[in-house]
Amino acid sequence: MDDPVDLTPLRAMLEQRDLDGYLIDADGSNSDQRYVSGFTAPDPYQTLVTRDGVHLLVSGLEFGRAQSDSAADSVSRLSAYDYHERRAEHGRYEGMIRTLAAFLADHNVDTIAVPQEFPTGTADGLREQGVTVTAETEGIVQKIRATKTPWEVNQIRATQRANEAAMAAAETLIASADVEDGVLVHDGTPLTSERVTEEIEITLLRHGCGLDETIVACGADAADPHNRGSGELAAGECIVIDIFPQDKETGYAGDMTRTFSRGDPGEEARRRYDVTKEAYEAGLEAVEAGVTGAAVHDAVCDVIEDAGYETLRSDPDTDTGFIHSTGHGVGLDVHEEPRVSPSGGELEPGHVISIEPGIYDPAVGGVRIEDLIVVTEDGYENLTDYRVGLDPTTE
Amino acid sequence: MDDPVDLTPLRAMLEQRDLDGYLIDADGSNSDQRYVSGFTAPDPYQTLVTRDGVHLLVSGLEFGRAQSDSAADSVSRLSAYDYHERRAEHGRYEGMIRTLAAFLADHNVDTIAVPQEFPTGTADGLREQGVTVTAETEGIVQKIRATKTPWEVNQIRATQRANEAAMAAAETLIASADVEDGVLVHDGTPLTSERVTEEIEITLLRHGCGLDETIVACGADAADPHNRGSGELAAGECIVIDIFPQDKETGYAGDMTRTFSRGDPGEEARRRYDVTKEAYEAGLEAVEAGVTGAAVHDAVCDVIEDAGYETLRSDPDTDTGFIHSTGHGVGLDVHEEPRVSPSGGELEPGHVISIEPGIYDPAVGGVRIEDLIVVTEDGYENLTDYRVGLDPTTE
Repeated sequence: MDDPVDLTPLRAMLEQRDLDGYLIDADGSNSDQRYVSGFTAPDPYQTLVTRDGVHLLVSGLEFGRAQSDSAADSVSRLSAYDYHERRAEHGRYEGMIRTLAAFLADHNVDTIAVPQEFPTGTADGLREQGVTVTAETEGIVQKIRATKTPWEVNQIRATQRANEAAMAAAETLIASADVEDGVLVHDGTPLTSERVTEEIEITLLRHGCGLDETIVACGADAADPHNRGSGELAAGECIVIDIFPQDKETGYAGDMTRTFSRGDPGEEARRRYDVTKEAYEAGLEAVEAGVTGAAVHDAVCDVIEDAGYETLRSDPDTDTGFIHSTGHGVGLDVHEEPRVSPSGGELEPGHVISIEPGIYDPAVGGVRIEDLIVVTEDGYENLTDYRVGLDPTTE
Repeated sequence: MDDPVDLTPLRAMLEQRDLDGYLIDADGSNSDQRYVSGFTAPDPYQTLVTRDGVHLLVSGLEFGRAQSDSAADSVSRLSAYDYHERRAEHGRYEGMIRTLAAFLADHNVDTIAVPQEFPTGTADGLREQGVTVTAETEGIVQKIRATKTPWEVNQIRATQRANEAAMAAAETLIASADVEDGVLVHDGTPLTSERVTEEIEITLLRHGCGLDETIVACGADAADPHNRGSGELAAGECIVIDIFPQDKETGYAGDMTRTFSRGDPGEEARRRYDVTKEAYEAGLEAVEAGVTGAAVHDAVCDVIEDAGYETLRSDPDTDTGFIHSTGHGVGLDVHEEPRVSPSGGELEPGHVISIEPGIYDPAVGGVRIEDLIVVTEDGYENLTDYRVGLDPTTE
């Protein structure tokens, strides 16, 4: 990471609670650890934040790479604390606990805070070794991560560029398909969600990005915001495409949704598209530093309710209408702080958030429009450069 | 999952320790939870194994899918335990803890075992609510997962078919490249690790598989078993290709390694290839139910040491020679139980393991050959159908 991350709030918490350190024990899938250490590895490793440094404990296999790549002030390997001997004597689990206790003692750390998701086996094992372990349940590192450095914003921007290429590839497939018996047809075979998803994935791969899932959902499928979609794509129905890739090198994510229809989806669907677009514009318009995520969400709900559709604000039990929150933070995780929802707190400059209203009903289909933006002092900068329109084009 | 998984050892542990249940609190990236519940979701959910049932607690968004897709005996949604009210009153963390405590109480569960990696925040929160929580550090679910049902073996076999297609695509690229000034050239540009990796990834995508990483490493890169490789591929050097994809639907992994050289890599490299192949054959030959993973590893080390190369058995500190273990279990995780290493216990029918000896030296390069097999009563069945040979072909 080019800018050092600012762990001041974490160190203030340690000082306030009179604790010696903050310990993470996780593998590379844990974004907090990746963020704090500037390092990632497939197997578990440990990151200790003390009042004046960041210290890594890694296996011998990762030692060289951790020394050259990580942002830590010191890197130790397990063998420096006699892991192999301890494991031979005490077994795999207890050997690792004792090694970790020795690592903590070496850094003069007796009392630690750990993240909510820190392994219970490690916490209880360290307690047996005399270490005081307190779970920190506020998500302090997630809060720090919410505010991006300029370098981080650039990484997210780069992923969103790849995302735009993937969306363009998907839109082109849909726009250039033939329509036969109400179904989209490409190269003589029905165009399916799976085929469009493959096109998206291949495009992202060529841009150095990967993803776990993508949504290409048509008709009633698209009325369920969590449905990935499957099967043939129909003409005259809304197709929701939601792409959230992650750069394979940096780990930073992008996120964007567009809704397309080949042919006329009908007056009601078009009205829903227009209302969703109006709500998306109202959401963007509401964003600036100092405004709460809740207020942005309210601005979006206002538009949708005024148009006569339900929201979870007007009816917490509704299955149709706007049935999710307006947005979420995006960074090393696709979903992270802050929230743009009824519980969303004050937005700050450097928050990267999605704005993604939608209107859903199995009888009509689904519509969603989503951009990724960064909050600024007096508004926002849109990190997404992609046309908003229901009719797909090949441009 | 077609066959129900056999949780008998887990329930025996509960009975023996006089505990009411085993609780997992994780998201879909946790393979233990996926295995026990037959369900996966991007966000956290909870799986409770009692003496007579498996019970899921999921968000409203996942409720329908959990009911239709999961293998659980009951599925509850958070709102059934007043999550939203509790969260409004006590905040996000404490609200969730109280909801979970109510879910446990509803199933008459006061005392639980949890996995080593269970969140400390959840464990300590439940303890505050009067639940007795003990971390189970033996990895009991991992042990159960080591033995595959016939259905699971078929899923792994299917992923390995995709893997073979990807390996063939990579081999074809290397075999059909031109050689100019000692470098492989494809379509007029130097053939790189990155280009071959892309070909592998695209082939896997077309077969419904994804992967986090792939190794296409040439020359000195290939002498570091964890180096993914980068840059131009040279003629007359060993290129190690290690592919470990996962099926996107089932989650089951495959794993295979082949080593190729365009042109003569020299006598020493060819000798290392032959010794590695002999060691791989000796490893396969040693496998049968009742034999330990340690004994299989020893059979492999015997061949390599007899040929005059170091192993971690002959020199624990060696940086060259055979510097990793012989293999590992493969299933919902690419690396899981059992181990085919010095600490490997008895192999059982249904264990799916890799056999992957290699010989490494930065001065000569790296060689590795790996198949995936399933242990049977009197030997093994090879789940891999791919020629072993140093010279790449386009067949």
